[in-house]
Amino acid sequence: MEQKFDAVTLGELMLRLSPAGGRRLCEAGTLEKCAAGAELNVAAGLAQLGLRAAVCSKLPDNALSRFVRAEARASGVSDEGIVTDTRPGARMGVYYYESASSPRRPAVVYDRANSSIHSLTPDEVPSSLLSTRLFHVSGITLGIGPGPRETAVRLIERFKAAGAMVSFDVNYRANLWEDQEERAVVEPLLPLFDVLFVSEESLRRMFGRTGERMEMVRAFAREYSVRRLFSTERHVLSPTRHTFASLGYDAGADAFFTEPPYTIDIVDRIGSGDAYVAGALYGLLTADSIQSAVRCGDAMAAAKCTVHGDLPCTDAAELVRLIEAHAGGVQDEMQR
Amino acid sequence: MEQKFDAVTLGELMLRLSPAGGRRLCEAGTLEKCAAGAELNVAAGLAQLGLRAAVCSKLPDNALSRFVRAEARASGVSDEGIVTDTRPGARMGVYYYESASSPRRPAVVYDRANSSIHSLTPDEVPSSLLSTRLFHVSGITLGIGPGPRETAVRLIERFKAAGAMVSFDVNYRANLWEDQEERAVVEPLLPLFDVLFVSEESLRRMFGRTGERMEMVRAFAREYSVRRLFSTERHVLSPTRHTFASLGYDAGADAFFTEPPYTIDIVDRIGSGDAYVAGALYGLLTADSIQSAVRCGDAMAAAKCTVHGDLPCTDAAELVRLIEAHAGGVQDEMQR
Amino acid sequence: MEQKFDAVTLGELMLRLSPAGGRRLCEAGTLEKCAAGAELNVAAGLAQLGLRAAVCSKLPDNALSRFVRAEARASGVSDEGIVTDTRPGARMGVYYYESASSPRRPAVVYDRANSSIHSLTPDEVPSSLLSTRLFHVSGITLGIGPGPRETAVRLIERFKAAGAMVSFDVNYRANLWEDQEERAVVEPLLPLFDVLFVSEESLRRMFGRTGERMEMVRAFAREYSVRRLFSTERHVLSPTRHTFASLGYDAGADAFFTEPPYTIDIVDRIGSGDAYVAGALYGLLTADSIQSAVRCGDAMAAAKCTVHGDLPCTDAAELVRLIEAHAGGVQDEMQR
Amino acid sequence: MEQKFDAVTLGELMLRLSPAGGRRLCEAGTLEKCAAGAELNVAAGLAQLGLRAAVCSKLPDNALSRFVRAEARASGVSDEGIVTDTRPGARMGVYYYESASSPRRPAVVYDRANSSIHSLTPDEVPSSLLSTRLFHVSGITLGIGPGPRETAVRLIERFKAAGAMVSFDVNYRANLWEDQEERAVVEPLLPLFDVLFVSEESLRRMFGRTGERMEMVRAFAREYSVRRLFSTERHVLSPTRHTFASLGYDAGADAFFTEPPYTIDIVDRIGSGDAYVAGALYGLLTADSIQSAVRCGDAMAAAKCTVHGDLPCTDAAELVRLIEAHAGGVQDEMQR
Amino acid sequence: MEQKFDAVTLGELMLRLSPAGGRRLCEAGTLEKCAAGAELNVAAGLAQLGLRAAVCSKLPDNALSRFVRAEARASGVSDEGIVTDTRPGARMGVYYYESASSPRRPAVVYDRANSSIHSLTPDEVPSSLLSTRLFHVSGITLGIGPGPRETAVRLIERFKAAGAMVSFDVNYRANLWEDQEERAVVEPLLPLFDVLFVSEESLRRMFGRTGERMEMVRAFAREYSVRRLFSTERHVLSPTRHTFASLGYDAGADAFFTEPPYTIDIVDRIGSGDAYVAGALYGLLTADSIQSAVRCGDAMAAAKCTVHGDLPCTDAAELVRLIEAHAGGVQDEMQR
Amino acid sequence: MEQKFDAVTLGELMLRLSPAGGRRLCEAGTLEKCAAGAELNVAAGLAQLGLRAAVCSKLPDNALSRFVRAEARASGVSDEGIVTDTRPGARMGVYYYESASSPRRPAVVYDRANSSIHSLTPDEVPSSLLSTRLFHVSGITLGIGPGPRETAVRLIERFKAAGAMVSFDVNYRANLWEDQEERAVVEPLLPLFDVLFVSEESLRRMFGRTGERMEMVRAFAREYSVRRLFSTERHVLSPTRHTFASLGYDAGADAFFTEPPYTIDIVDRIGSGDAYVAGALYGLLTADSIQSAVRCGDAMAAAKCTVHGDLPCTDAAELVRLIEAHAGGVQDEMQR
Repeated sequence: MEQKFDAVTLGELMLRLSPAGGRRLCEAGTLEKCAAGAELNVAAGLAQLGLRAAVCSKLPDNALSRFVRAEARASGVSDEGIVTDTRPGARMGVYYYESASSPRRPAVVYDRANSSIHSLTPDEVPSSLLSTRLFHVSGITLGIGPGPRETAVRLIERFKAAGAMVSFDVNYRANLWEDQEERAVVEPLLPLFDVLFVSEESLRRMFGRTGERMEMVRAFAREYSVRRLFSTERHVLSPTRHTFASLGYDAGADAFFTEPPYTIDIVDRIGSGDAYVAGALYGLLTADSIQSAVRCGDAMAAAKCTVHGDLPCTDAAELVRLIEAHAGGVQDEMQR
Repeated sequence: MEQKFDAVTLGELMLRLSPAGGRRLCEAGTLEKCAAGAELNVAAGLAQLGLRAAVCSKLPDNALSRFVRAEARASGVSDEGIVTDTRPGARMGVYYYESASSPRRPAVVYDRANSSIHSLTPDEVPSSLLSTRLFHVSGITLGIGPGPRETAVRLIERFKAAGAMVSFDVNYRANLWEDQEERAVVEPLLPLFDVLFVSEESLRRMFGRTGERMEMVRAFAREYSVRRLFSTERHVLSPTRHTFASLGYDAGADAFFTEPPYTIDIVDRIGSGDAYVAGALYGLLTADSIQSAVRCGDAMAAAKCTVHGDLPCTDAAELVRLIEAHAGGVQDEMQR
Repeated sequence: MEQKFDAVTLGELMLRLSPAGGRRLCEAGTLEKCAAGAELNVAAGLAQLGLRAAVCSKLPDNALSRFVRAEARASGVSDEGIVTDTRPGARMGVYYYESASSPRRPAVVYDRANSSIHSLTPDEVPSSLLSTRLFHVSGITLGIGPGPRETAVRLIERFKAAGAMVSFDVNYRANLWEDQEERAVVEPLLPLFDVLFVSEESLRRMFGRTGERMEMVRAFAREYSVRRLFSTERHVLSPTRHTFASLGYDAGADAFFTEPPYTIDIVDRIGSGDAYVAGALYGLLTADSIQSAVRCGDAMAAAKCTVHGDLPCTDAAELVRLIEAHAGGVQDEMQR
Repeated sequence: MEQKFDAVTLGELMLRLSPAGGRRLCEAGTLEKCAAGAELNVAAGLAQLGLRAAVCSKLPDNALSRFVRAEARASGVSDEGIVTDTRPGARMGVYYYESASSPRRPAVVYDRANSSIHSLTPDEVPSSLLSTRLFHVSGITLGIGPGPRETAVRLIERFKAAGAMVSFDVNYRANLWEDQEERAVVEPLLPLFDVLFVSEESLRRMFGRTGERMEMVRAFAREYSVRRLFSTERHVLSPTRHTFASLGYDAGADAFFTEPPYTIDIVDRIGSGDAYVAGALYGLLTADSIQSAVRCGDAMAAAKCTVHGDLPCTDAAELVRLIEAHAGGVQDEMQR
Repeated sequence: MEQKFDAVTLGELMLRLSPAGGRRLCEAGTLEKCAAGAELNVAAGLAQLGLRAAVCSKLPDNALSRFVRAEARASGVSDEGIVTDTRPGARMGVYYYESASSPRRPAVVYDRANSSIHSLTPDEVPSSLLSTRLFHVSGITLGIGPGPRETAVRLIERFKAAGAMVSFDVNYRANLWEDQEERAVVEPLLPLFDVLFVSEESLRRMFGRTGERMEMVRAFAREYSVRRLFSTERHVLSPTRHTFASLGYDAGADAFFTEPPYTIDIVDRIGSGDAYVAGALYGLLTADSIQSAVRCGDAMAAAKCTVHGDLPCTDAAELVRLIEAHAGGVQDEMQR
Repeated sequence: MEQKFDAVTLGELMLRLSPAGGRRLCEAGTLEKCAAGAELNVAAGLAQLGLRAAVCSKLPDNALSRFVRAEARASGVSDEGIVTDTRPGARMGVYYYESASSPRRPAVVYDRANSSIHSLTPDEVPSSLLSTRLFHVSGITLGIGPGPRETAVRLIERFKAAGAMVSFDVNYRANLWEDQEERAVVEPLLPLFDVLFVSEESLRRMFGRTGERMEMVRAFAREYSVRRLFSTERHVLSPTRHTFASLGYDAGADAFFTEPPYTIDIVDRIGSGDAYVAGALYGLLTADSIQSAVRCGDAMAAAKCTVHGDLPCTDAAELVRLIEAHAGGVQDEMQR
């Protein structure tokens, strides 16, 4: 029997507010609203590519949460796993993001404490969501507080038990964790993950790994019985020009997969890591191929960087065009 | 010896975010930033009219608070009484405001819990602020939490002791107070107030007064030894059309003062009560006249309703023009 | 067994483009995009009120149709009944709308010929849509061309046969029909309709009825065996001020239902008739009450006039607040 | 032999800058550019209605004047009479306009001293412009300085000699004239004018006339041998609601002409007097009828008030629709 | 005797709609209107440089066509050759354009079928347009349909007969032609063209030419008796950085002309090929020099890429400054 | 006894108007307002870094000057030295600025003649401003006219006499000076300057210096007894990419100081020279170190280039972050 969803993600849905037109937060002017949240970004990427995706979260019942829910649905993400927080004073996490121009760097002001997600319990999640091929969560959900952490761990176990593939993105954020704290939380969970996303830097700093990159990945995957591991590599040439590439590892075949890097003119780099996750999971779910996962992940990440907002904006047809153009190595003109 | 300031106010400085162009909060689009806060509004009104005003508050050290401080200074308000909250996680109160179109009413989403003002202590306030002719605070500062309430009461006493006239605006907000709670807090303070702003509705509901309006005002002022009392009266014909008038009472002379009501095409009604307070205090501080206070208060409130944002935008020359045109009873064309 | 949907509507989905800020189409400047279409508006209204609604239509596969589909989903409308037109040159209907200021009237430029809906066949509609409590279509779908007319008639029969209640809005548009043409098309279908929306003017001009309004409605409903009939009444005081009320008729009980009219400050009157239909159907589907239908329809129509775009923007909680305020007869201030 | 132009006007072309969205000049934000100038407005009105119109003026050679020239051409006005001022430091007149909301009135900041028009000499005007049926100028051109005044007087004589009908709009502006100054300048010119536009207030204040309006007009026209005289009447109900009507007088027939007043929802009232002139001249030039002139003038003035900017935006088809709707006395809906 | 126009062009006038601020068509937001059409772009370029240019086309009579006509006039282009299509349902071609950010490429959605230009007949073109030094048309006009093709061929013959120089831009668009179709249409016309614009790629793919670029150009020009041939060369380094250069060939002198390439920061690359044509024709018409044509063409194309919209925005003075700066090889600062 | 101000600057305050979104001045659209003026920029930079700064100037009393004063205060600059020009017709200088895209260069239209600053006399300056550690003026104030020049010279002497350090920025503008005129004015003043900002190009062209850069600086400083001299060096790679570095010279120690150049993605380069002055003076006033002055000046100039408007937007904390990141040589990601 077929599952209801291809993928369910768990995480905080936020409101992102960014000055329009390259302005700064401290200046007068307007702020552009967008829906945000690492796991929403992943679900939105998968839904835009044509898969059936839902996000599991908790939001207050006000005009701002209605906006965020509508944005999720507009991206094709089911909102049936978004629990409503009816307590007075319930609030949604907000963050303010200001983009950069060299040598000025991007800036973020977080205002996410005490948001509704902190009161989400595993029992509030509708059981219909368990009918999914894949469950995904990131380290952010583990890092924002004890409530979300406990709920995430319980749900990882529950979805695993229900037969879903479990995917995890370490997604280290310095402002969420004390030193070595994330390692202590994540390490015991590693054997539960069918797919792991972890950067080279996290392997070195968080997990104390050393040595050459591929060796390190192989050793890590073996030690923790991670079957499929992906590691992205971004070079920031300037705030408006990055390169992006990634490495996929198939522990079963002891095989590495990669693609030539993309050079990207950055419009908005936020959410590109999540777009990578969406692309890679799309490759796994539709082609069961790590090469395809790397190819789709790289393209999704590059494409995300070229659009405003946290959410990706690429459907399957555009993904194919991006991959073909990248393979052709040509920078050709528009078709008209 | 002359005081450094004509007026010092105490209250929370907030960030207000409003959809541009009559849009709704739940729609996609941009939000307009403005500085907000009842007592900031009062200080800004006084400063724009040419008096030396400062606001006493506490803000985190981030891009958003820099914006709000700059807006305060732009209005001519000294920021030397704004204490910086250096604790990690310090946050500023935010509110989202959506304007109305009949029969749809305006809407507000508050997100002001746990803001920096809650940790402000009387000792953090620079002593230079005590050199002022007047100290003003509103019921909002008493209502948002025990910290601000305690600090406000201490500062009322301290400014009173330093020789300042003390002004208080009851400014009842249903979402800040339990039933009868504000009365219990405010009643013991009433004898400290040289100037009191209280609406007819508050007299009836909060203080249980009954009877004809002027009688009620007279009795109330006498009972609590309030020397000068102002009470505004707004009629909402539609979200975009109000009338506004007020009543001033001089307890010493047992005299009432009023002016013909203004009919107003509303652009943004938020902050018009605070603009009234600013106008009335301006009348008291510059002319020591309740008639002048009523005249300036009414004009400032009406003018505020015609501009976007919380803060008034009227200097002394415009105030004179408004009062003269209102007195003339003519709706004449622009001068050119 | 429960149906999958509460309501399915059939009609053309369009792109509406309107000058921002009260500008005119012939001036330089920008156009605001929104999704449009009478039957989409009805479905969106129902979905926002919490019912499960889908729209049945056909769209090309391009960036503009992706926008319109996303807007439909954002409103909560299922897009599983939107068929993709893969023919080269497939196009979506577009209309340009310019709002008014007295004595200048609103203006519309239609560009909807040869759009994808014209090629929609009944067999393309997914059978899953048949599982619905109600099927709704308007006279526009009958009027835009022979293809949509034929498809609409077939689907009315098919949904009727599948057990759905059938609702029809005459929605006469002078630019779509030759003289008496709509009557000839609609008359034979009337006995199929469980719910009929028809204006007084259409009764007189299209169906040649005469006499007093209520008598006319009663006679018409009896003659064509229409069980429930609704007729709205709008008075245009100025382009920015209308009144709106309606009459509901229960043929079984021979009873009329009405509510006091709303006075409305118009932001954008397009789609308010459709919002009425949504509100009335909501009343029927949730309370099975014509009084409730009239009450919800009036409020939805009034609320729609106060927001930009074709689609309504009112959820069930706001609907309740509007109805209560209207009943109270008070124009009170915002709650804060 | 036919003339090249139907109308040539003479006056200063200006840049108008206005805050977008009802903001004030003293606030942060953007300013909307538009072309301005009373005589340009008249020429633009005539050109949009389908007549061949040119404006005679002088502008510096910079990006701002290129904008204003392009706007003139976009309106259909020939720019062959716009002389280029190549002197270093040449500048264009600018004015800043802020719209109103009751009780706040509109405000203007002029910055038009020393603009290029002050150096325009009659000999710089291309002789091709003399081939016109009508020449129009307003009191503003006489009032801004001795150069424009002298040039205007010379050109009035020259166009008169060339056979053109001469039209003059008194257009009194308090900030341009000392007491009684305009009367002294205008009085000797009056016999040259075939068409005169003068408000009732100007007749009283500037020319010292007294008595009932129609009597006053008749006496004035006779004394100065003015054949056709038009006088507009505006009532400012509020900054956003005016009524507008006018009186036409045919001295030859000793006949008065008028139309029922328009009630107008004001978007931007600047330039509506000039639009009236354009409409009235259009009536004279196309129908040689004062009744038609009053009818077209009233409609053009009303329509101008409903669009942003100084220039009108109404073509002949819209003019007909406005007049028909006004005659019908109905406020009907859009046609669709 | 002098001709009335320096240049007349023939082609479809379109409305272009583009998302503001680098947004995508599928996102919510506004679209920027601009006038478009290859031959309008050429006429606008010539008019801005000071020549008398007209465009010959056909448009419906609605608000959108009024906008496009006004934009043409604003650019200095005479609209007397724009025929009005009064048929009901007449429509104007529209295209939607979304700009790019590497690796995402620009995208276009065309909606130009059945537009008014398809019904333009040679006899509708006012005979006054025949008084011109040059007539220009592009392959787009031949490709959009049989009506425009037939009309274009007839007008090429008619203008040729009237003594005008004839210019043709192959302007190959893959979405307008079947394989080899354009060659079959264009080849018989080639001997009529005094000036031909054809890319190297078109020579190879459409005309089956091979070999080194200059040899190919020489052989082609000789075979078809083309006197003056221009071929542009653009390298797309990224969507926001191109280089641009061109080759001019004088068949009479068997001489080639070129200039060093421009490196361009792209704002909007659409219309730069047409701006090249305008610049080259300007060089021919004012200096009768192919070297000048190449120099002006290159500069106009480069300048067009730096402004928004289809139309160029460069007058003769700016053209001179660009050419001088390019010759100097310096990238100096602004003059102030 | 401590001075009231750390720095007082003298110069013209202007209104700058720039097209939004990379548009051109000659296009339709909006203009963004900002406060401008070289010496205001310097004062704003110092105030944002935490020093007490005032600007001395003269402005008319209108809405535009109120805007500029508010912007000055928002930046933390005291407006007590801004004298009000109450003469009728008083005006503020305005300039229009259009940014560039290669190969199109930036463009400026100045409209600053006859502004209020021309009537400022030394006696109008409040004496409270003399209580300052530093007085700064630029060559622009000397160049705009005889009045400002005379006032500047008198004030330089007066502030010097009052014990202030005097700083001067040569800031040569070709459009303000005849050949060799600035040299004649500046040369006699040089011995009064404690700090001098002069570009290499000015040393060569204005002062006729030759030879290697450092030798030239040393010789110049010795000849005129300038103790501290700063010279910036900008390379314009393209309108959107510059490098910036500077050289500081300590005449007493005969020592040169420099830092590695910044590579900058330009948002708006106007005011970056003034930001350099602010940074360098900050280094001198807080650390009395030329190395620190160069370090702070370079960072302030680079940061200014990345924000819109004339005024810098960098506080002390951001300055430290910029310097640290530049020292680290890394282009790392945002901290989050």
